[in-house]
Amino acid sequence: MSARRNHDREFVRTFFTSPTAVEGEDDSAKMLRSAATLRGMQAPDIWVPDNEDATAPSMRDEGAENIVEVVAEHGSEFPGEIHPRVVWHRDDPGTRYRGFEHMRRIADPERGAIQHIDGFVIPEVGDIDDWKKADEFMTIVEHEHGLEPGSLAMSVVVESAQAELAMADLREEMGKPTNRLERLFMLVDGEVDYTKDMRAMTPTGSLPEWPELRHNTSRGASAAGLIAVDGPYDDIRDVEGYRERMTENRAKGMLGIWSLTPGQVVAANQAPLPPETGYWLLDADGREVELREDDGRYVYGGDRISLEESGGGYVLRVGADERVLDGEELREELLGLTEYVPSMDDIVGSMAEFEAAKEAGKGAIAMSRSSTVVVDGIEAEITADRMWDEATYQAAMTPVRLFQDIYENRPDQHDELVEMYGEDVVERAMNVG
Amino acid sequence: MSARRNHDREFVRTFFTSPTAVEGEDDSAKMLRSAATLRGMQAPDIWVPDNEDATAPSMRDEGAENIVEVVAEHGSEFPGEIHPRVVWHRDDPGTRYRGFEHMRRIADPERGAIQHIDGFVIPEVGDIDDWKKADEFMTIVEHEHGLEPGSLAMSVVVESAQAELAMADLREEMGKPTNRLERLFMLVDGEVDYTKDMRAMTPTGSLPEWPELRHNTSRGASAAGLIAVDGPYDDIRDVEGYRERMTENRAKGMLGIWSLTPGQVVAANQAPLPPETGYWLLDADGREVELREDDGRYVYGGDRISLEESGGGYVLRVGADERVLDGEELREELLGLTEYVPSMDDIVGSMAEFEAAKEAGKGAIAMSRSSTVVVDGIEAEITADRMWDEATYQAAMTPVRLFQDIYENRPDQHDELVEMYGEDVVERAMNVG
Amino acid sequence: MSARRNHDREFVRTFFTSPTAVEGEDDSAKMLRSAATLRGMQAPDIWVPDNEDATAPSMRDEGAENIVEVVAEHGSEFPGEIHPRVVWHRDDPGTRYRGFEHMRRIADPERGAIQHIDGFVIPEVGDIDDWKKADEFMTIVEHEHGLEPGSLAMSVVVESAQAELAMADLREEMGKPTNRLERLFMLVDGEVDYTKDMRAMTPTGSLPEWPELRHNTSRGASAAGLIAVDGPYDDIRDVEGYRERMTENRAKGMLGIWSLTPGQVVAANQAPLPPETGYWLLDADGREVELREDDGRYVYGGDRISLEESGGGYVLRVGADERVLDGEELREELLGLTEYVPSMDDIVGSMAEFEAAKEAGKGAIAMSRSSTVVVDGIEAEITADRMWDEATYQAAMTPVRLFQDIYENRPDQHDELVEMYGEDVVERAMNVG
Repeated sequence: MSARRNHDREFVRTFFTSPTAVEGEDDSAKMLRSAATLRGMQAPDIWVPDNEDATAPSMRDEGAENIVEVVAEHGSEFPGEIHPRVVWHRDDPGTRYRGFEHMRRIADPERGAIQHIDGFVIPEVGDIDDWKKADEFMTIVEHEHGLEPGSLAMSVVVESAQAELAMADLREEMGKPTNRLERLFMLVDGEVDYTKDMRAMTPTGSLPEWPELRHNTSRGASAAGLIAVDGPYDDIRDVEGYRERMTENRAKGMLGIWSLTPGQVVAANQAPLPPETGYWLLDADGREVELREDDGRYVYGGDRISLEESGGGYVLRVGADERVLDGEELREELLGLTEYVPSMDDIVGSMAEFEAAKEAGKGAIAMSRSSTVVVDGIEAEITADRMWDEATYQAAMTPVRLFQDIYENRPDQHDELVEMYGEDVVERAMNVG
Repeated sequence: MSARRNHDREFVRTFFTSPTAVEGEDDSAKMLRSAATLRGMQAPDIWVPDNEDATAPSMRDEGAENIVEVVAEHGSEFPGEIHPRVVWHRDDPGTRYRGFEHMRRIADPERGAIQHIDGFVIPEVGDIDDWKKADEFMTIVEHEHGLEPGSLAMSVVVESAQAELAMADLREEMGKPTNRLERLFMLVDGEVDYTKDMRAMTPTGSLPEWPELRHNTSRGASAAGLIAVDGPYDDIRDVEGYRERMTENRAKGMLGIWSLTPGQVVAANQAPLPPETGYWLLDADGREVELREDDGRYVYGGDRISLEESGGGYVLRVGADERVLDGEELREELLGLTEYVPSMDDIVGSMAEFEAAKEAGKGAIAMSRSSTVVVDGIEAEITADRMWDEATYQAAMTPVRLFQDIYENRPDQHDELVEMYGEDVVERAMNVG
Repeated sequence: MSARRNHDREFVRTFFTSPTAVEGEDDSAKMLRSAATLRGMQAPDIWVPDNEDATAPSMRDEGAENIVEVVAEHGSEFPGEIHPRVVWHRDDPGTRYRGFEHMRRIADPERGAIQHIDGFVIPEVGDIDDWKKADEFMTIVEHEHGLEPGSLAMSVVVESAQAELAMADLREEMGKPTNRLERLFMLVDGEVDYTKDMRAMTPTGSLPEWPELRHNTSRGASAAGLIAVDGPYDDIRDVEGYRERMTENRAKGMLGIWSLTPGQVVAANQAPLPPETGYWLLDADGREVELREDDGRYVYGGDRISLEESGGGYVLRVGADERVLDGEELREELLGLTEYVPSMDDIVGSMAEFEAAKEAGKGAIAMSRSSTVVVDGIEAEITADRMWDEATYQAAMTPVRLFQDIYENRPDQHDELVEMYGEDVVERAMNVG
């Protein structure tokens, strides 16, 4: 069986952490208070009041109190889910005990916060038996406070080799009668601590890419019906790098990412949404370049590729390679160098077209897209064909289901979504599938 | 223990699917009939009458009948193995029941097809317990029809995270007394549905590369004595891309690939065979270029590297880098930039040489290869040495064992193989190892 | 719990194999004798008298005798650990029996070698039950010779898919009462035989990169408290390639590597140590270039990037891209293209700075580094900031703990380490953390 998803959200784009108590401020909960008022694209899908690494160890008892106070006051208005991170460590019972105590305090219904809290994030978990300890503490907290059993979601930060291995066992372990691991919600990578645990080193001290960890996290999430979220991207000024990381992640099925600032939240909330307008990419001698649209034609403006007419044919130069081509060959060659990035409108249109074809008894249809590409003033008409069958349709559904999940769960983003796509596209996207 | 291989074929290059019933044709079995007559390099190692995704859902009962009819008529002449794909889904008992019924019908010996069928392909499997359900249905089919227990091979399409995880357990599960998983034969990746299951997205809608999935499939196959096969390559016109994918796959130990057309079958049947003639590759500033043979010398004809004599020495330019070298340094530098791709003749020769050395009591010998390389008219003699020991010999044996497996199992390809390599090389290749 | 490390060394840089008996020499133990006298950077952390692949099968009984003789004579003076490799094969009881007999002979305390031997290396292991057989043979050898139970370390060579899978089970299996797998010490990849076992092929016969295997080895080591070591790098003359492989490995947490020659030992002993002097790297249109230090400024001398003043601003060309920038934008752009590689002195300084900040109650501080970068004679002052928190500090600790482990265990390298870093830096490095 496919794993059942047990939570409201099926997709998470953003996991935004805030320090719970900052020393030396008049109001130590200042950062929490400011995060609690975020709305629209600046507000994350998941807000994580972080009573672990973002908060100094000496401030964490106060941090737990701040969480209660701020969430009780602002939680009902906050548009995303709220999942505080408490302290935990596979190697240290003292830390685990403290995390347990913080959860108990935060979850006391008399104090008015737990009504707005969706679950807790447990860092530094070890192997699966360690995950079960955290699960049991949540069960006890639910029991003590009369909360519905299993109602507190549990998310973990995967930052050790042990935890990476544990993700392969989730599907089996989640069915066992002596735990409530069905409360699991997100698997979040924590690459800084993982790098330490793996004892990895790079010359500059930058983090390794860890592609296998991210694959295994995404796979573990898929097999167990959970949501995969990548760890923090430290270089806050490097917006381009953050976007590239997210593009890589999405190709792995890891659709969410940690955000350290409201600016990163905006970038990460938008990144997985298909663009408003489709466009063509050209492989210009190994570098991917977006073609500029000009009056319905797509123009390459760089000098890595050049094209000229010559004796009835064409000479195409790509880097150091030169080819003499006739018109048909030129179109073939340019088709091979280009790829189309569909807009939301394009995707919804293709899906509707396939649905109609299916209705009419066809199993597979060809989708065509024609465009005029211009290099050095010379125009060429190219046509890309793609066969769509049920599997293609299902795979194309992912960005649409993501959109639908956002639209249903984040009314505070409706205006921005409508502004981006237009009423019509939004409505069609909500009705397809 | 190494896993025992339980089937006739130890290697599979090609896995060719045909729709079993096409609507709107006079003869709905037309595609099956045409595939059944393929011979030689156009005929796949494994032919898969595809009663799942390639055939519209409404045509699948008729498809099962068509399989019986066409295989009964043409099966005895077909040069490859025949493994129909039936419907299956880990999440849907109705689909599994239908797959079971189709297998029962196809396997009825009275109808004359099962005698030529080697097994079935089961798509959309889930975790290992789901695999066991398919195995049990085959056991029942064998029992009902008086077939030898375990005689029907079972191959699965890995297109979910669950199934990817299951491959790590095969070695252990295949020994258990309450299943007959020893019937397992091929592990076939299905990247389109896998992409959906992982909820992955790319900007253009193209498939992610999934290197880890392919590694894990190859590893699972190796640990359990099975055969790893990659999924379909959609862009049928992109022959170069298909070849590159196969080269990557072979470096992962995944020697087989899905073929969608007879043209892809030819390409995939030939791709894993060592070339007829060896040649040198040159790393021309990051681009790999094949040197042109000219009267025993190997000539670089591009302009990414240039070489000239200067004051008794040489100036070598590679892209933007320039070096002044003496003759010895030039040879060293060119040796570092080049690699030799051995022909089948070269490989068989090296193996025979090592076998003779081993006979004479030596554990390791140096294999040398000298060639004249020409850049900008200047000749340099280069000599590449490689130490061969038992492990090198064993690893070099893989393409030879592949060749031997083909030669033994595919008499219909003898003429083409002899035409490619010559009688002498074929004979030596069959006798080495 | 984190896995406890049960052995003296927590880090291994070098795993150096020597043939145990060479035919046709006056003294068949000549290679062993020469290896036994290596000292300082030429001496490996782990010396492996190799009674398997490096030694002809007919010479292995004599090889076992040679190990006893040479280690009894030179072992007490040898600065690294000594772990002979014996024969073993998952598929062949005869080979396993022979390995057992060789261990018994080598471990006889009367003969004076075992006192200097730290453990054995077992090649060609299969799944976990095969590892247990080798473990049991060592238990029997310890019992027979009155050695302390568990005192012989066991290291394995991972050169099959089965063994790769087994590494995921170590953490669980090592706690079980009926084995002594706590004796496990190193997980060593053996890519040549692994390539054979996976049936992988490359056009040139070169080894595939196997990034997933190396990840899984490093992960298995981390989860079970063991040490990951990469396999042999065959192209002995390619020092640059060997260094690049080690840089890649370190980013995976695989800090050790096989060495085939004393030259490779020197390279591999030095490679994981932070440099004596920090330096800047520049991304010059896709190629990473080290800037030349000149009187405190860092100068780019190539022509892949060019810079000129123009009308009060600057024109920066990177490959084919050209940008007009003001002074602030130029600094931003150059900062984005550069990365600093810290020296040991830099690392120790940053750690001490963070320790002091922590003492003062701060959880995170910004570390800044300013430098003058020069391109085409134009100077720009750039400042890189990095936030350090507890996790950053812990991750930066890895090279320092490696250094400390070396310094404590390898007094024969003290002079070279002091010469490299200076007394002061060595002393500070030993006291930090």
